[in-house]
Amino acid sequence: MQLPAYEDVCRAHERIAPWIHRTPVLTSATFDAMTGATLFFKCENFQKAGAFKSRGAVNAVFGLEDADAVRGVATHSSGNHGMGLARAAACRGIDCTVVMPETAPRAKVAAVRGYGGEVVFCTPTNTARQQTLDHVVAESGANVVPPYDDARVIAGQGTCAKELLEDIEGLDVVIAPIGGGGLIGGTALSCRALSPHTQVLAAEPANADDAYRSLAAGKRLIEDAPDTIADGLKASLGELNWGIVQHEVDEILRAEEAAIVEAMHLIWQRMKIIVEPSCAVPLATILHHPERFAGQRVGVILTGGNVDLDRLPWSY
Amino acid sequence: MQLPAYEDVCRAHERIAPWIHRTPVLTSATFDAMTGATLFFKCENFQKAGAFKSRGAVNAVFGLEDADAVRGVATHSSGNHGMGLARAAACRGIDCTVVMPETAPRAKVAAVRGYGGEVVFCTPTNTARQQTLDHVVAESGANVVPPYDDARVIAGQGTCAKELLEDIEGLDVVIAPIGGGGLIGGTALSCRALSPHTQVLAAEPANADDAYRSLAAGKRLIEDAPDTIADGLKASLGELNWGIVQHEVDEILRAEEAAIVEAMHLIWQRMKIIVEPSCAVPLATILHHPERFAGQRVGVILTGGNVDLDRLPWSY
Repeated sequence: MQLPAYEDVCRAHERIAPWIHRTPVLTSATFDAMTGATLFFKCENFQKAGAFKSRGAVNAVFGLEDADAVRGVATHSSGNHGMGLARAAACRGIDCTVVMPETAPRAKVAAVRGYGGEVVFCTPTNTARQQTLDHVVAESGANVVPPYDDARVIAGQGTCAKELLEDIEGLDVVIAPIGGGGLIGGTALSCRALSPHTQVLAAEPANADDAYRSLAAGKRLIEDAPDTIADGLKASLGELNWGIVQHEVDEILRAEEAAIVEAMHLIWQRMKIIVEPSCAVPLATILHHPERFAGQRVGVILTGGNVDLDRLPWSY
Repeated sequence: MQLPAYEDVCRAHERIAPWIHRTPVLTSATFDAMTGATLFFKCENFQKAGAFKSRGAVNAVFGLEDADAVRGVATHSSGNHGMGLARAAACRGIDCTVVMPETAPRAKVAAVRGYGGEVVFCTPTNTARQQTLDHVVAESGANVVPPYDDARVIAGQGTCAKELLEDIEGLDVVIAPIGGGGLIGGTALSCRALSPHTQVLAAEPANADDAYRSLAAGKRLIEDAPDTIADGLKASLGELNWGIVQHEVDEILRAEEAAIVEAMHLIWQRMKIIVEPSCAVPLATILHHPERFAGQRVGVILTGGNVDLDRLPWSY
C-alpha cells in the first residue's frame, strides 16, 4: 500500500469541493480565558452528513471509474463514515451498504437509511465488523471504502486541516481526535506541507488509547472492542495511518471519560453548538494540560455533531 | 413616552458595537427542502450572554449619564434580559439587580450570578414581577432597564435586523418571535427604513397569544401568567411595543406547544446549533404554513441559546 501525499490532498480538495461545505472556524472568549490559549475551532459538526467523514467518502466515491462505480460501495462504520459514504453514494447515484455494530446510536442508523444506504448489523467488535463486510462484498461485488485505512480517505480528510491552515495564520498547534487515524493522518499531511512549524497533536480517550501505546511501543498495537463514550474513536489505528502517525504526529494526549463528557457539556453550554463526544476529546486534553497550550494559537478540529438527542451522556 | 425611530437604532449600533458580536447568518439545505423557501437564520444564540437581549441591555447601560450609572441598574426578567443586563453592567463596572420568577431555568439564574448580578426571586406572574422590582428600586435608587417596554431597549434590539438586512439582500420576509415586543419592535424599525418591501412577521406561542389577540381586537390586551415551553415569550406586549406592532407588523402567526418542541428538536438535529424553545417558534410557524412562505427569501431571527441542558423539553 502506498502512503498518500499532500498532492493527493490537493486533488481531493478539488474533487470534493462541489459536494462539501467549507466549514466555519469559531472562537470562544470563554475557552480562551479558561485555557490561556487562543483556540480556533474548525466546525466539521456543520459538515454535510454532520461530520468530516464526508470529505474522505466523497473523495473515494467520486474517484471511482464509472465501470467500478456501478457495483456500488460498502463499508463498516460505527456511524459517521457510514453516513458520509451513504450520502456520497447518493450524490453519485450508486448503491451503498453499511455494516454497523448493533450498539451504534439510533440517530446514525436512521441517518444512513435516510440517505438511501442499506444497513447490515454485526456484533460490536472490530473482528466481527470485518467478517460481516467480507460477506457483503463477496455477494455484491461492491467497492470497499474503508473508514480510515485508505489513501483516498486519508487524502480527503486532510482537506479539513488544509482549510483551517488557509483560513487561520500562525497556528502553533493543530489538535484532532485519533481513532483509526484517517483524520490525523490527513491533518499531518496538510500541516507538514503548509505550515511545517505547526505541531500536530492527537487526542485519544484513555479508554481506547491504542495509538498512544503504539507510539510508546514503536509498533502498531491492535485493540478489540474498547469501551468509551467517544463512540467515533473505538477503532484501532490503521496500517497506512500508523505509517503517517509514527513519523508525523508530535504527541498523543489522553482524556478520561468524565473529562470528555464535561468538555462536551461545556462546548454545548458555552459555544451553543452540538458536538459529539468524540469531538470533545481535544478540548478535554487542553483543559487538563493548560500549561502545554498557554499562550499558543491552537487549531482544534471539531469532528462531528451526530448525537442521539434523546440519550445524552450527562443524563444517563 | 416617545417611540424610538430608525435613527435611534443606528446610534445604538455605534454605541454597542464594541460590546456585542455581529452574529453569523446560517442557511440549511434541509429546511429549504422541507419548506420550499430560502431561509436565512440570524444566529443570536451566538450573541454575548447567549441572546439578542445583550443588544438592548448594552445600549441602555452605556447610554446612562455617569451620575446616574453609579446607582446601578435593575430589571425583571425570566432570564435572557437579566443575563444581558448583568453582563452589560459588568462591562461598565456598575451594580445590577435582577428580579426573576422562581420558575426561571436554573442555568439562567446561575448565569446572571456568574456575571455578578444579584438575583431576587418572585412568584411567576407579571404582576408580582413589577411589584418586586418597585420594591428593589425604592431601596437602591437603581436605574430601571425594562426588558422590552423602553425606547433604548427597542432601538438596541433593532440592530439585529439591521445587520441581517445589511448582510442578506432581497429578503421578502423577516420573522421573529414576539413576547413583550422589544425584538419585533426594533425589527420593524429597521425593516421599514432599510427594506420597505420586506414583510415583518411575528411568531407567537398559541398558549401566550396576547399579541395576536391584541392585533385582532385593535387594542392591547394583557395576559397574566401564560403557560408555554417558550419561556422567553411569556410577557405581554408592552405599551411602546404595541405602538409599533399595531402599525408595522404585517401578520402574527401562532404555533402550538408540540410544534414548538418539534421545531426546536429539528434545529438541534439538523443545524447542530443549540437554540431555546422561544427561538423555534418562527420555524414552527413556517413548517405549519409552508404555502405562506414557499418561493420566498425569509430571514428568521434565532433569539437565544440559553437552555438548561439537563432538562430538555423532549425528555420531560
